[in-house]
Amino acid sequence: MSFSLADHQFMARAINLAKSGRFSTSPNPNVGCVVVKDNQIIGEGWHQKAGSGHAEVNALANLTPEQTTDATAYVTLEPCSHFGRTPPCANRLIDANIKRVVVAMLDPNPLVAGKGILLLMQAGVDVKLGLLEDDARAINTGFLSRMERKRPFVTVKMASSLDGKSALGNGQSKWITSAQARADVQTYRAASCAILSTAKTVIADNAKLNVRKEQLNFQYPFNDVVSEIRQPIKIILDSRGELDPKLQDKLALFDDNTPIVIVRNDTDPMPESQRTNVKYLQIPYDLTKGKFDIARLLDWCGINEINNLWVEAGATLAAYIIEQQLFDQLVVYIAPKIMGVNAQDVMPVGPFSSMEQVIDLQLKQLVQLGQDLRLSYVNNSKFKKSEE
Amino acid sequence: MSFSLADHQFMARAINLAKSGRFSTSPNPNVGCVVVKDNQIIGEGWHQKAGSGHAEVNALANLTPEQTTDATAYVTLEPCSHFGRTPPCANRLIDANIKRVVVAMLDPNPLVAGKGILLLMQAGVDVKLGLLEDDARAINTGFLSRMERKRPFVTVKMASSLDGKSALGNGQSKWITSAQARADVQTYRAASCAILSTAKTVIADNAKLNVRKEQLNFQYPFNDVVSEIRQPIKIILDSRGELDPKLQDKLALFDDNTPIVIVRNDTDPMPESQRTNVKYLQIPYDLTKGKFDIARLLDWCGINEINNLWVEAGATLAAYIIEQQLFDQLVVYIAPKIMGVNAQDVMPVGPFSSMEQVIDLQLKQLVQLGQDLRLSYVNNSKFKKSEE
Repeated sequence: MSFSLADHQFMARAINLAKSGRFSTSPNPNVGCVVVKDNQIIGEGWHQKAGSGHAEVNALANLTPEQTTDATAYVTLEPCSHFGRTPPCANRLIDANIKRVVVAMLDPNPLVAGKGILLLMQAGVDVKLGLLEDDARAINTGFLSRMERKRPFVTVKMASSLDGKSALGNGQSKWITSAQARADVQTYRAASCAILSTAKTVIADNAKLNVRKEQLNFQYPFNDVVSEIRQPIKIILDSRGELDPKLQDKLALFDDNTPIVIVRNDTDPMPESQRTNVKYLQIPYDLTKGKFDIARLLDWCGINEINNLWVEAGATLAAYIIEQQLFDQLVVYIAPKIMGVNAQDVMPVGPFSSMEQVIDLQLKQLVQLGQDLRLSYVNNSKFKKSEE
Repeated sequence: MSFSLADHQFMARAINLAKSGRFSTSPNPNVGCVVVKDNQIIGEGWHQKAGSGHAEVNALANLTPEQTTDATAYVTLEPCSHFGRTPPCANRLIDANIKRVVVAMLDPNPLVAGKGILLLMQAGVDVKLGLLEDDARAINTGFLSRMERKRPFVTVKMASSLDGKSALGNGQSKWITSAQARADVQTYRAASCAILSTAKTVIADNAKLNVRKEQLNFQYPFNDVVSEIRQPIKIILDSRGELDPKLQDKLALFDDNTPIVIVRNDTDPMPESQRTNVKYLQIPYDLTKGKFDIARLLDWCGINEINNLWVEAGATLAAYIIEQQLFDQLVVYIAPKIMGVNAQDVMPVGPFSSMEQVIDLQLKQLVQLGQDLRLSYVNNSKFKKSEE
C-alpha cells in the first residue's frame, strides 16, 4: 500500500495533535485526528482526557455535513466501534459522510481490533491502514504496554556522575545534577501515571514526589478541558513499615491529596489508613533477597490502569529492576563531575564474571541540558527477545 | 572595532583552511589565509607542514602583483616577522601591495607578538586585529599550550560502560565500545604529536598504538605536500623495566619505525637501545605513590615540541593524571552496557569525603557514534583558575 506525501504530512500532524494529550489522557490512549478536504485541513482534534470527546468527535465538532461530505479523516488509532459514554467514532465518521479514513494503527485490544475498520468499510468508506504506524505506537508506549502486556511501561530514572556514581561514600549527593536537569524530571513525572519510590528515599530526602507547575517546561493550562496538572499516584515500597500513619504528618510526601499507595509485605499486619488519599497494598516480599516481588506490583499497576510507571528511588531499587529485566527504559542524567572510588555506584547490578552477562542497552535519545546530559536507553535484551 | 559580515565570512574560511593542517603542521601552528579583492576570494592557502610554505605565501603563490595590489588578506595568526627558511610573511604581504590585513590573533610567543603587525603598519598597511580570535585559538590548543605553558595540551581518552566501568572484575573488557568508536579514536591519534601509555597496557593488549589509514574517517593523502599519515611518537611509562630490549621483538608496539620513548625511573640503570627508533628517558619516580612525575614528563614534552599529547592507557594512569589536575580534556566513549558492581572503575580517583573535593568538569562536545557516545569535557578547575 502506498501513501502520498500529503497523506504523510496530515498523519504527522494528527500524531502531533495526539501528543498534546500526554499529560492528561491516561489511562486512555493519545489520539489525534485531522479532517482534510481539497487538500486543506478543515478540522483538527485530539483526545484530551477520559470522559471527554474522542479525537474524531473533536475534529468534526465545528464542521457542517456539507463540509465533511467526501472529506478524508486521518486518525492515529483505529476509530472505536463500541458504545461508551458517547456513540462509536466509526459511526460518527460514517454519519459525517467521510469518504476516506487513513488509520495509523489498529486498536491494541485484540477483542475489538479491526471492528472499527470493518464498520467503516461496511458503510462504503475507503479505509487505509498502517501509515506512520511506528510513530503512532511511540506516542502510546504506556497504553500499548498495558493493553499488550497487562503491565505499565517502566522507566527508571537515575542521576549519575561521569564515573557512574550517585552519592559519595558517606551518602552526600545534593545536588549531583543541575536545576535544569531536575526541572526536566518534572516533565517525566507529569507524563507518568504513577511514581514508584521507597520509604527509605522518601524519608531520607523528605521527597514530595509531585509535579511542580512552576518548574515545568511547558505551558499550562492547555484549555478548559485540560485545566490543571494531574499529579501521578505515589507508590511507595515500605518493607519495614516506616511510613507509620502516626508519622505521616511529618513527611512532605503527605502534603497534598494525591493518592498514595503504600506497599507492605503480604505477611505483615495492615495498619489502618488515617487519610482518605492513602491506601495500603500487600505484595509478596522475598526475605532472603530483601526485595518485593516487583513483577507482582507491575501486575497490580496493569489492573489499576497505570500506563506509565516512573521509578525514582535509590540505587538499590533501580539495580534490582534492571537485573530482573523489569524495566523498559532507563533515563540517566549525567553530571560533569567525577566522584571517585569510594562513592556509591548509581546502578549496582551484578556481580558479573563474563561479558555475556553484561546488560545490553539500546541508545534511544540524547539531550544536552546545560552542562548535564539526559541519556535514554531501552532494554536491548527485551528488544532482542521480541525479534526472535 | 567592528568587522563586517563579509570580514567574518572570509576569516571563517581562513580558519577552515587552517584546520586542514591538523594532522600535519605540528610542531608548527595551523594557519589559514584568504586573499580577497572586490569582495571575491582570489587566493587561498594553509600551512601544511613545518618546512613548507606558510599560509600567506601559499595564498599569494599564484597571484600577480596586479591582482594583489589593494587586496585584503585574512590571516588566522599574526604574519611572521622573522627570517627563517623563508623571508617573513609580513614582508611578503607588503611586497604584494596588500592594502588591508585582518588578523585573528597575535603570535602567542611574547618575544615576537606584535612585531609582524608593526612591520605591516609601518609599511602603511591597514591592520585589524581580533576577528574570530576564540575560533582561531580553538584550532591551535596544542600549539598555544606549548607556547604559553611550555607543556602540551593533554587529552585523556577513556572507554566506559554506562555505569562507569572499564572492565569486569577479572579484567575482561574486549570490546566495551563499538568498532565505530574505536575508529573514531584513530582520528584523535592522527591529530596528536604523541601518545602516552604504559608498559602494562602495551603488553596486556599487545597494543600497536599507531594510526591505521584504513580506519580513518578522512581522506588521505591531501596533496603532494601532505602525502602520508604521520605517526605520533609513542611514549611508554615503564617503571618496572618490562620493555626489555630483548623482549621487544615480540610486541606489536615495535612493529614499525615510529619513534618510541621508553620512560624509566631516574634511579634505574639505562638499558642500551637495540633500535634506532627507540630511546630511553629518565623521569623521577615516586616510590611511595608508585607513580612517575608526570608534570616533569610534560615539561620534557614541551621542550621536545609536542603540542598535543593523547593519553591512552589504563584506568590507573588516567585517574592519576585527573587527580593531579594535569589534564586539559577528557574524551570519554560511553557504551550502552551495564557492567556491574565488581567491574573496574574507569576513573578511580579519590576517595573523596565531601562534595567540594569532587572533580568538576565542563562539557564541551557531545557526539553519537552509532550506539556509543563520545563526550568531551575540559578541566573546569583550570578554567576557574584562569578566570580568577
